[in-house]
Amino acid sequence: MSKKITIAIDAMGGENSPDKTIHGVKLFLDKNKSNDDFFLKLFGNKNKLEQILEKYKIKSNKLSITHTEEVVSDEETPLTAVKNSKNTSMWNCIKSQVDGDSDISLSAGNTGVLLVISRMILKMINDVSKPALAGLWPNNNGMNVVLDLGANIECNDINLVDFAELGSALYKSLFPKEKPLVSLLNIGSEEIKGTETLKKTYKKLSELSNENNFIFKGYLEGNRIMDGDSNVIVTDGFTGNIALKTAEGTAKFITDNLKKSLTENLITKISLIFSYFSLKKFKNKLDPRKYNGAIFLGLNGPVVKSHGGTDEIGFYYSIDLCYKIVKGNLMQQINNNINHLKGE
Amino acid sequence: MSKKITIAIDAMGGENSPDKTIHGVKLFLDKNKSNDDFFLKLFGNKNKLEQILEKYKIKSNKLSITHTEEVVSDEETPLTAVKNSKNTSMWNCIKSQVDGDSDISLSAGNTGVLLVISRMILKMINDVSKPALAGLWPNNNGMNVVLDLGANIECNDINLVDFAELGSALYKSLFPKEKPLVSLLNIGSEEIKGTETLKKTYKKLSELSNENNFIFKGYLEGNRIMDGDSNVIVTDGFTGNIALKTAEGTAKFITDNLKKSLTENLITKISLIFSYFSLKKFKNKLDPRKYNGAIFLGLNGPVVKSHGGTDEIGFYYSIDLCYKIVKGNLMQQINNNINHLKGE
Repeated sequence: MSKKITIAIDAMGGENSPDKTIHGVKLFLDKNKSNDDFFLKLFGNKNKLEQILEKYKIKSNKLSITHTEEVVSDEETPLTAVKNSKNTSMWNCIKSQVDGDSDISLSAGNTGVLLVISRMILKMINDVSKPALAGLWPNNNGMNVVLDLGANIECNDINLVDFAELGSALYKSLFPKEKPLVSLLNIGSEEIKGTETLKKTYKKLSELSNENNFIFKGYLEGNRIMDGDSNVIVTDGFTGNIALKTAEGTAKFITDNLKKSLTENLITKISLIFSYFSLKKFKNKLDPRKYNGAIFLGLNGPVVKSHGGTDEIGFYYSIDLCYKIVKGNLMQQINNNINHLKGE
Repeated sequence: MSKKITIAIDAMGGENSPDKTIHGVKLFLDKNKSNDDFFLKLFGNKNKLEQILEKYKIKSNKLSITHTEEVVSDEETPLTAVKNSKNTSMWNCIKSQVDGDSDISLSAGNTGVLLVISRMILKMINDVSKPALAGLWPNNNGMNVVLDLGANIECNDINLVDFAELGSALYKSLFPKEKPLVSLLNIGSEEIKGTETLKKTYKKLSELSNENNFIFKGYLEGNRIMDGDSNVIVTDGFTGNIALKTAEGTAKFITDNLKKSLTENLITKISLIFSYFSLKKFKNKLDPRKYNGAIFLGLNGPVVKSHGGTDEIGFYYSIDLCYKIVKGNLMQQINNNINHLKGE
């Protein structure tokens, strides 16, 4: 029997947990009834988790509970977390990877603490200069990987080249049949535009571009992130975070205004009868829960951060993301790409 | 008789000009039939402009044509523009401000060249460290000023503080009854987040915050730009440009998908009959042409850059913006704010 894809889940982190996390687990188990190639290791308060498993009528030999006494609070700072977190569900969840008991960790808890203790426990891959937080964005053809989304607010060309290799490896693990097309986020598409760091990165990525690892497409402006012409978009963590949140804010502004318009009077409400299914499909395509899960790359093991405020459906998608990442051999892909970087 | 608001217009720059620019002039004249407090100075090929004025049946004593032989091409680079542009409509349009013949300049031509020759001809205001390009964004309560949008890709705390004063002056000239509420774009709202430059700027803006010039609201994340809680949002030109273009791309992605959904079959098309007026209002509220016009601030005279690809309606809005800026005494507001900065 081949080894199963083992996902370590911090069941306690995030709003409305562990109810939401366990509900998400149920959705995942229901969708994967015929699959026997995975195992879910839940970390958290055993009593509570058992109660909620019962509430959702989950009886499965595809999961286990590891009891942990404490939970990382939202107020905990990255600075004190290392000292305070050893008995938490988050810490033990990640630690199970080092012990060889799991392949990937998932948490909806405190982001800052998760980044710090992941880095501390799993340690950085040799030859990677900085780890990065990668996210998934919808685009016209499917989805993009965008990184860094905020792990590193200042980055040099070496970091950005690493991000291109890490992001390409992630893309290949998620979409094995496609070639990663890498672009560098900038304020113009001409070669002379941008900071010195971007120009140096441009030169290095042009030299590294090949059919096996990634194809470098050059600079990309913010308005073309969702065009679908690139599928790995590289930027520093400050810019990436601003871009991601600005996109979220814009999407919310537009859909809120649309909602207001379509419900403002009886006649527009009648229109909804006719457009109901199409609008539902529209909403479904843009549903942020489908893109829930930022992936922390560059450590000796992948860690996925679910949005803290998501619901059971969002959490389900982040479990599914973990499953796909391991199935697509992310760590092997990263290894290949790091060797490429070293010229091996 | 008091001096009229005199707007110098480069009638030749941008796509479909001078047809579009003159058509925009017509819309402005039509909307301001009863106003007698402005004058439009058009710069461009006299023959062509007269033909198009005739085409649109424009006969007005509120405008003049100054003949210029050449036009700045889209291919012209900022580096060679100073040498090559002296006989162009753009150059002479801006120069008329120095000669005391106009109060503000408007062009839809080559952005890079416009920034360089504006700076060269008008020169920077003493005590301003860098000029900035400011734009208008829709928000829940009306509109924001956001700057810098790309004039300076790297900025220090002194530049960012200048932008806060310049942006507040612009906001006050546009909305004389409101107090400018300034925020600093960052990747978190806590005081400890962000780069050293941002932390220094935060401290200075906190000290400068007062009822007369601007009230500093602290850091703002990208997802809250459109909330309407701030009305002057300060950032460096790299980040501002990425944020602006990402918002544009996101808006396009969503509205394209919505359009596709609402026209995909006969039933959804029927729904449009019922929602037509509400959707039109929705579209109208978000119409980017209403926010057309980036304002170049920090020089001894304001310059407005219209989007090159906009149409006559967008160009009309940028003429209207020029009119409002001068009517609101932008240069006087800037002078006040610069004195505030100097502690006077």
